[in-house]
Amino acid sequence: MNPQQQVRIAVLGAGTVGTEVIRLLRTGKDDLSARLGASVVLEGILVREGEEPRDPIVPAELFTTDGFGLVSRADIVVELLGGLEPARSLVLAAIEAGAGVVTANKALLASHGPEIYAAADAAEVDLYFEAAVGGAIPLIRPLRESLAGDRIRRVLGIVNGTTNYILDKMTTDGMDFDTALAQAQELGFAEADPTDDIEGYDAAAKAAILASLAFHTRVSIYDVAREGITGITAQDVASATSTGHVVKLLAIAEETDTGITVGVHPTLVPLAHPLASVAGSFNAVFVEAEAAGELMFYGRGAGGLPTSSAVLGDIVAVARHRVAGGLGPRESTYRSLPLADPGDVVTRNQIRMVVVDRWGVLAEVARVFASQQVSIETVYQVPGRTTDGTAELLVTTHAATVRALAATVSGLTGLDVVDRVESVLRIEGSQ
Amino acid sequence: MNPQQQVRIAVLGAGTVGTEVIRLLRTGKDDLSARLGASVVLEGILVREGEEPRDPIVPAELFTTDGFGLVSRADIVVELLGGLEPARSLVLAAIEAGAGVVTANKALLASHGPEIYAAADAAEVDLYFEAAVGGAIPLIRPLRESLAGDRIRRVLGIVNGTTNYILDKMTTDGMDFDTALAQAQELGFAEADPTDDIEGYDAAAKAAILASLAFHTRVSIYDVAREGITGITAQDVASATSTGHVVKLLAIAEETDTGITVGVHPTLVPLAHPLASVAGSFNAVFVEAEAAGELMFYGRGAGGLPTSSAVLGDIVAVARHRVAGGLGPRESTYRSLPLADPGDVVTRNQIRMVVVDRWGVLAEVARVFASQQVSIETVYQVPGRTTDGTAELLVTTHAATVRALAATVSGLTGLDVVDRVESVLRIEGSQ
Repeated sequence: MNPQQQVRIAVLGAGTVGTEVIRLLRTGKDDLSARLGASVVLEGILVREGEEPRDPIVPAELFTTDGFGLVSRADIVVELLGGLEPARSLVLAAIEAGAGVVTANKALLASHGPEIYAAADAAEVDLYFEAAVGGAIPLIRPLRESLAGDRIRRVLGIVNGTTNYILDKMTTDGMDFDTALAQAQELGFAEADPTDDIEGYDAAAKAAILASLAFHTRVSIYDVAREGITGITAQDVASATSTGHVVKLLAIAEETDTGITVGVHPTLVPLAHPLASVAGSFNAVFVEAEAAGELMFYGRGAGGLPTSSAVLGDIVAVARHRVAGGLGPRESTYRSLPLADPGDVVTRNQIRMVVVDRWGVLAEVARVFASQQVSIETVYQVPGRTTDGTAELLVTTHAATVRALAATVSGLTGLDVVDRVESVLRIEGSQ
Repeated sequence: MNPQQQVRIAVLGAGTVGTEVIRLLRTGKDDLSARLGASVVLEGILVREGEEPRDPIVPAELFTTDGFGLVSRADIVVELLGGLEPARSLVLAAIEAGAGVVTANKALLASHGPEIYAAADAAEVDLYFEAAVGGAIPLIRPLRESLAGDRIRRVLGIVNGTTNYILDKMTTDGMDFDTALAQAQELGFAEADPTDDIEGYDAAAKAAILASLAFHTRVSIYDVAREGITGITAQDVASATSTGHVVKLLAIAEETDTGITVGVHPTLVPLAHPLASVAGSFNAVFVEAEAAGELMFYGRGAGGLPTSSAVLGDIVAVARHRVAGGLGPRESTYRSLPLADPGDVVTRNQIRMVVVDRWGVLAEVARVFASQQVSIETVYQVPGRTTDGTAELLVTTHAATVRALAATVSGLTGLDVVDRVESVLRIEGSQ
């Protein structure tokens, strides 16, 4: 290695993450050079017309509004713009020009991943994106590399800190959804417009990326079944607790006999499961692999500083290849698996319903489950709801298809003795 | 890439892990070839004179007792012999011959790591050892690569499944140490001679490897302060529970102002800490990094199948480099940090002691702490111990040096009112 060698880095975007990346590049310069055997040079920073540095450590003299010009001068392009354009065009231009690319842009990869992976493959350049899922948590690298000789069966992820914070507050403080959301917004854990988080779009993009890597096949955000948490009530959370569960918004990706299934769903997780104790805005991804067994990766899923750590790790990896030769693993999507029919997906569930409180109701309810061959594991009558002549029932099922379950719920709502079905929640992570 | 290209693999050792690695190599052949763009060929298996295959999937015709001959014909040498020799000589011969090396041998790396890392560096061959710490848990790769642009401050690891199983049983079932050990032996979680595990030697070897990677400096097992769990009583565990803690055997590596400190100690962990819920024989490593913040990696720390998953991931990484060119990250031990004076290490502690149950005792006890400038956070008198005229006190300290704490304990045992000091346990993971 040649200590005179330079690695030129272009940073696209000088927002929160960009600023922290630049800070780490500057303060860690000597360490980085020692680790790499080459010096790291910040070639330029792409900003919008008239944008000012947020922080004195960001050198305004390196600001440029000419993205394509900057990309053409760099060995490594670090894309932190977010959104689809101009991020997509600049990343493709960087690849075309032979630069390695590091990106934290989950939306870009979830929508245009296949195009970008293919371009990087063809140009034989590195494409790293550790920060796109799970912020600081090393996740992409373990999936791409450490488990490369194993076969992943299932991935369960808490990949959105905003919704985890809200559900955690609802669980530990008994808050309702609106109060918890308002508090999250006050503390900066939720955006003024929280739709992307609470409706599960953010988690769905990450689910698509995780599923692609786990199963070596192409999955886009459009393949992901998606439910948010806006329908989760304080009563859902309390009922979950009463049966030894917590409610978590999970990204769930699974390989079945008929294909893969990828979704984002509010889910009941048993208290003893490692995912249950992931509190506040932390993220965690739980992986079930054939040989490795159960694994979990836990950490900060968002924030400028944690995310910048993941970006820096990627920059170092790409820079090492620039200095020492070689390339990181390619995206191996050699399997081209079909999506399973969503109706075929098999899950355990908990159904919460309000029924008329009289003899014989349970028999009628049970008959509907039996008619769809959905097997009941437990029935629990929630105490203290009988004053108005109704009772609340929690029915936990054994594994059943989504199709059979939907037919069951439809049958239940047709019964005179059933006032309403309040919620139907999946259960994951039990034995 | 050339699908006709072959990667020749030598497996040294056909024990539990070796057998599973061979199984995965054979059953996953097509997937591996697809991922690599080259075919993987099992060149030979080093066994002891007269050894028979344990499993029909292991091809006896590939058995050889000529280790050096086998190593000379391989592109990748997978060392699963364990122990120091002949593992060390064969690994060095493989490196010399230009083969990439994958090893799961923590003892070898903890004792001869620097020699082996330097040899691999000089020969410019890959050296991967994901399975040496934390079994199936991707841990080495995140430390070497994902956090390469960050600065790690502290590592806290549950890295020995046997002791975690025993402590977990003592906590959840109220067992004493001997009963829990006997049960662990019955279930195969502990060896007939459990010394290596329960005295912390196994954890110390892993602590040395983790510290080397975390701080980019050379740490050998001889640098690791080591305490086992044989002194932990049912009463220690019960007292921990009564103050909201669990007892865990932790590998602790920390960078301080005066150097690094690496140790293995039975430690109190607050119940809300992610490490507290690591149950049974599972392992987990908790990392505090400057930018990334808190991270945790969780999974199966031992067992043939989980360990073989980590070995396979390494084989794939090394094979990719053989096919596509390049090398994995080198061991960057550029910092050469000194070891801190163990007396300077600062920790919080809980001291459990039996005192005479009369007025004025607490004042005398408090005076001893004050004389060493060890600040008391809480004092808790354990109920129901006063029948024999003594009382049990739990004193929790603020952060103090090991030196000041030792002087305090010595002062306490000198007091007439103190019958005995039962235990002194560190507290880690609190805010």
